[in-house]
Amino acid sequence: LLVQILDTIALFLSRKLAEIGFDLHFKTTVGDNTGRLTAALEIAAGRADVIIVTGGLGPTVDDITRDAISAFTGRKMVMDNQLFSRIAGYFKKRNIEMPENNQLQAYMPEGATMLENRAGIAPGFIIEHNSKIIAVMPGVPSEMHPMMEKSVMPYLLEKFGPAAGVIKSKVLHVVNLPESVIDEKIEDLFRSLANPTIALLAHQAEVDVRITAKAAGVTDADEMISKVKAQIYERLGDNIFYEDDETLEQKVAQLLFDKKITVATAESCTAGLVAFRLTSVAGSSGFFMGGVNAYANSAKINIIGVDEEIIKIHGAVSAECAADMASKTREKFGADSAISVTGIAGPGGGSEEKPVGLVYIGVDINGEVKTHKYIFPGSRESIRVRAAQTALLCYYKESKNA
Amino acid sequence: LLVQILDTIALFLSRKLAEIGFDLHFKTTVGDNTGRLTAALEIAAGRADVIIVTGGLGPTVDDITRDAISAFTGRKMVMDNQLFSRIAGYFKKRNIEMPENNQLQAYMPEGATMLENRAGIAPGFIIEHNSKIIAVMPGVPSEMHPMMEKSVMPYLLEKFGPAAGVIKSKVLHVVNLPESVIDEKIEDLFRSLANPTIALLAHQAEVDVRITAKAAGVTDADEMISKVKAQIYERLGDNIFYEDDETLEQKVAQLLFDKKITVATAESCTAGLVAFRLTSVAGSSGFFMGGVNAYANSAKINIIGVDEEIIKIHGAVSAECAADMASKTREKFGADSAISVTGIAGPGGGSEEKPVGLVYIGVDINGEVKTHKYIFPGSRESIRVRAAQTALLCYYKESKNA
Repeated sequence: LLVQILDTIALFLSRKLAEIGFDLHFKTTVGDNTGRLTAALEIAAGRADVIIVTGGLGPTVDDITRDAISAFTGRKMVMDNQLFSRIAGYFKKRNIEMPENNQLQAYMPEGATMLENRAGIAPGFIIEHNSKIIAVMPGVPSEMHPMMEKSVMPYLLEKFGPAAGVIKSKVLHVVNLPESVIDEKIEDLFRSLANPTIALLAHQAEVDVRITAKAAGVTDADEMISKVKAQIYERLGDNIFYEDDETLEQKVAQLLFDKKITVATAESCTAGLVAFRLTSVAGSSGFFMGGVNAYANSAKINIIGVDEEIIKIHGAVSAECAADMASKTREKFGADSAISVTGIAGPGGGSEEKPVGLVYIGVDINGEVKTHKYIFPGSRESIRVRAAQTALLCYYKESKNA
Repeated sequence: LLVQILDTIALFLSRKLAEIGFDLHFKTTVGDNTGRLTAALEIAAGRADVIIVTGGLGPTVDDITRDAISAFTGRKMVMDNQLFSRIAGYFKKRNIEMPENNQLQAYMPEGATMLENRAGIAPGFIIEHNSKIIAVMPGVPSEMHPMMEKSVMPYLLEKFGPAAGVIKSKVLHVVNLPESVIDEKIEDLFRSLANPTIALLAHQAEVDVRITAKAAGVTDADEMISKVKAQIYERLGDNIFYEDDETLEQKVAQLLFDKKITVATAESCTAGLVAFRLTSVAGSSGFFMGGVNAYANSAKINIIGVDEEIIKIHGAVSAECAADMASKTREKFGADSAISVTGIAGPGGGSEEKPVGLVYIGVDINGEVKTHKYIFPGSRESIRVRAAQTALLCYYKESKNA
């Protein structure tokens, strides 16, 4: 409860349960205390048919989930020999002596169904107890996610059938419009709709519009969503660039693959963020030639080849410099196109004429160069994140139309 | 429960309660359903002295907190005339006709103490019921945070006195050691200590060791923490690089400022992440000269100046290439030192000899070059994040000793 991290586990589980139409009614967080976890299990069993527990399956003394499950169900923990050999093998393979603690992880409650852990040591398990289903998984997301998807969800569907109906969501990512303007444009949909519902969520450089439909089946839900989606596209279409888990870099990558264009980057204030995002897409070596993080003016001049006169006359943070950075970078890397970013991320370095947040973005496509000027609000981090996001957007729009 | 956002509210409340020495034992999330919220209040009253409720105070039909509180306490909701005029004034000032729904927000449970909302319409309130304290606040963080700090925390301190003491935490970030090894090295501390307690939390490229002390006052808590901290440093000191909210890039930056060293980067698979992290520190233009994200071999050869023969003989992912990238980059940017990263982030591109995850890191300090070989597990993203983290670590160690 004191752990100073955000609860991404609950977020994942609520989405996955919605996908298969299970209503999530309560979410409870309990500290590493066997008595309190046992009490929480008792309360959960009194108000739900399925209980999902995550975390506390590690090898240390504060991993109390096995004990609590044992106390709650009255079942003994028994050593699973096969599991023990597997855990021992894990350490042997890595040439590490198996710590005695890890033996703990070879114990399972009597009668439990073991759930394979594809990414770590501790398996999960499912127990059916007094006609309640208790699924227990590790708390590490990389271990828990596949276990939920490959084992727990199929188990629940097998047990209860797909009859319960589904809840589906679609997220439209709106960029370059403030939340209040979006709100005004679709306010009537908000008010009139009970199902699907619409919700807004503002981020640093975009606003998510989430449409959620509850229906008997997936087809019905999809149909309900697509109707509302069409209405929202009518009003906000120009500013919706991607949906659901799609990312802007994926959209850019797809466009570059389709058009067979290569790209290079020249970044000052974002210092690599645009390049890093572009290359987050698998296969990006097919379109990304490389980039220069030209922080110092000497780097802009010596490495990219920016005209020294331009920096002298207009300064490094100027449309002229952004343009020259883009075109020289395109040439230098032998790319079809280039993106450049130069700006003042702060907190220092601003002036009345050139305030903190001032950013110029340059896009060169086959020798045709355009520049864009922005003044971004917020912290150093926020300015850099927005600058990279906006650079990718500018580039996307222009290479799409090129 | 379906809202696809992270629960920052719980995180905030757990920290604030710890600050004033209140033990948080349970956290429950309930959907917008009056019956279920009322039931959750009943459970909470059975296991805690103070219940904090957030959210559901808006003007819409799914804002059910007022009704649930009324049902649970058996108190009527009464219109507060002063509050009504204030809400009406809010709309009048903005030249908006007051929606009928907003009248709802002028109702308070009989006998409740109203809590001022400095950032929005709906006030919060506190009720004392059957010797339990129930504090209700809006769910919007910008409204809830000041209400918690200015109203609820003082109320709780006033009521229970400062006798309950404080809870303080310190986090030591341990890198380059697996969780199980850390566990073994400090296991006896885990077992023997009830206060302070020690907890481990594994991340992608590091493990956090959190020491939490409960004491009568801040000084006592600090003293308790520092004793345990010294013991942990004795055992893990070589692998502890930063504490609490400090970051690795801050440590590197501080070292570079202190030693007056400049640095440049040459990144292949991390494509800018090392440069981006280094420049996240304000004032980084004082030490960061720039970098090249040399994705294509042509970029490594033409922009950085890597010897073509080296790539032909050893390949781009090799110790030799990492070394040449570092030394050529240092020269090219006129820097005192350079960091290079070259590897296979996957999912494609791996072979038996050079598997996905293979990463070479080069560090050149004043012409002295060292390389390091790693094989990182996990996804493309995980490999890139670990590679950048490890590159910064290698660089930190070597520039510290240089």
